[in-house]
Amino acid sequence: MSIAPRAVLITGANRGLGLEFVKQIVCFATPPKYLFATCRNPDTATSLQEVAKSHSCVKVMKLDVCDFNSFNNLKENISSMLEGEGLNFIVCNAAIHLRSGFADTTPELMTSVYTTNVVAPVTLAQTFVPLLKLAAQKSSEKGMSWHKAALVNMSSILGSVESNQSGGLYPYRASKAALNMVTKNQSIDLKTDEILAVAVHPGWVRTDMGGQAAPVSPTESVQGMLNVFSSMSEETNGTLVDFTGTVLPW
Amino acid sequence: MSIAPRAVLITGANRGLGLEFVKQIVCFATPPKYLFATCRNPDTATSLQEVAKSHSCVKVMKLDVCDFNSFNNLKENISSMLEGEGLNFIVCNAAIHLRSGFADTTPELMTSVYTTNVVAPVTLAQTFVPLLKLAAQKSSEKGMSWHKAALVNMSSILGSVESNQSGGLYPYRASKAALNMVTKNQSIDLKTDEILAVAVHPGWVRTDMGGQAAPVSPTESVQGMLNVFSSMSEETNGTLVDFTGTVLPW
Repeated sequence: MSIAPRAVLITGANRGLGLEFVKQIVCFATPPKYLFATCRNPDTATSLQEVAKSHSCVKVMKLDVCDFNSFNNLKENISSMLEGEGLNFIVCNAAIHLRSGFADTTPELMTSVYTTNVVAPVTLAQTFVPLLKLAAQKSSEKGMSWHKAALVNMSSILGSVESNQSGGLYPYRASKAALNMVTKNQSIDLKTDEILAVAVHPGWVRTDMGGQAAPVSPTESVQGMLNVFSSMSEETNGTLVDFTGTVLPW
Repeated sequence: MSIAPRAVLITGANRGLGLEFVKQIVCFATPPKYLFATCRNPDTATSLQEVAKSHSCVKVMKLDVCDFNSFNNLKENISSMLEGEGLNFIVCNAAIHLRSGFADTTPELMTSVYTTNVVAPVTLAQTFVPLLKLAAQKSSEKGMSWHKAALVNMSSILGSVESNQSGGLYPYRASKAALNMVTKNQSIDLKTDEILAVAVHPGWVRTDMGGQAAPVSPTESVQGMLNVFSSMSEETNGTLVDFTGTVLPW
């Protein structure tokens, strides 16, 4: 756990779990050479900018995950900074949660959440897979790992159909179930390139999204997830795993 | 199986499985009093119009499932025909399948398939639940059944994350996984109203969507599904079941 992957990309890094990932990863005994931390508005991301000030590996980059046309430019920028090396580890963390139930959900809410939580990570993975492939090809490691090449989609137990006992939350639940399918797909489609794809449930965390009643602190959740990521292998590929390392049903 | 529910609504009834449902349901010993068969273009739905000509219970209605603003009008029309009675059984059958894999899928394909295959059935269920509730309230039957009040979402084993071994087909797979979640949600949220919600996998069927290499005929698939529907109960509520009655994993 003390050695981070060489080059890491995290979306939605200005707050919540995304910011906590950045804070903890820069404290690794061997931090990444590059930690690309994206957010919609770098100018107002004061906490993230604070971390970047004291850790030169952190590169704050502007990214609206729904502005698909901007993805290629971001990839080109990142690629040129990597000087011929690949990108090892991506966390698609940016997501929204617009609460609505059977009676009050709308086509607009359904579509908006799907766009951010599913279409964005699908498109981001498409854009950055060439850099993940490059990382896998340049690695001398056998098998699959986050040091080599891996893609993590931030999912939720709310996307587990099997675990669903309480209903409601249509836009979010539907989006995370779809994201779980996308992750399983990616784990199959990217396997020959030795790129891992995993969906992770962070626990119910005290963030803006999770609310203050949540039992898990961002610190604990991210510590747990980083433990999970650092031990990922072929075994973990294509699973939904929570922050304690427990594999969850679909 | 010889007695159909009193009032039935099927979307996408102009061809494929939707048309086959209509053809077989009108042949029940006791057919429905009303079989509302919707399609985008009634004028060009010649096969459906043929069936309607010889079976007066079949009411061909215009419905573009993506024209959400038209749903309320359709409900009002159907409601007035029902003369104070409810609607017992809805099959959300209309769906699209735009094939695309990891490399060639696009935000437009992802969103378009989600709109038709997920947002439309969610919105249709919202619109028609008052008529399903009415049917459940007017029924003297104990428990849950298709004669009383039930909602079927036409899903697919391609929406089962657990069963996914081959990847690809991102827009369709993601949409059906999301629809499975929606169905599970509905089975929980509508339970107190004694409305069943079930997702069904029709098998791989020789339709325009399934292609000519498919092993199952539309006749066989629909016979199987009608058998499944006629024996649905609390036990079946909230499951993904195939045309042979086998419950599939999520």
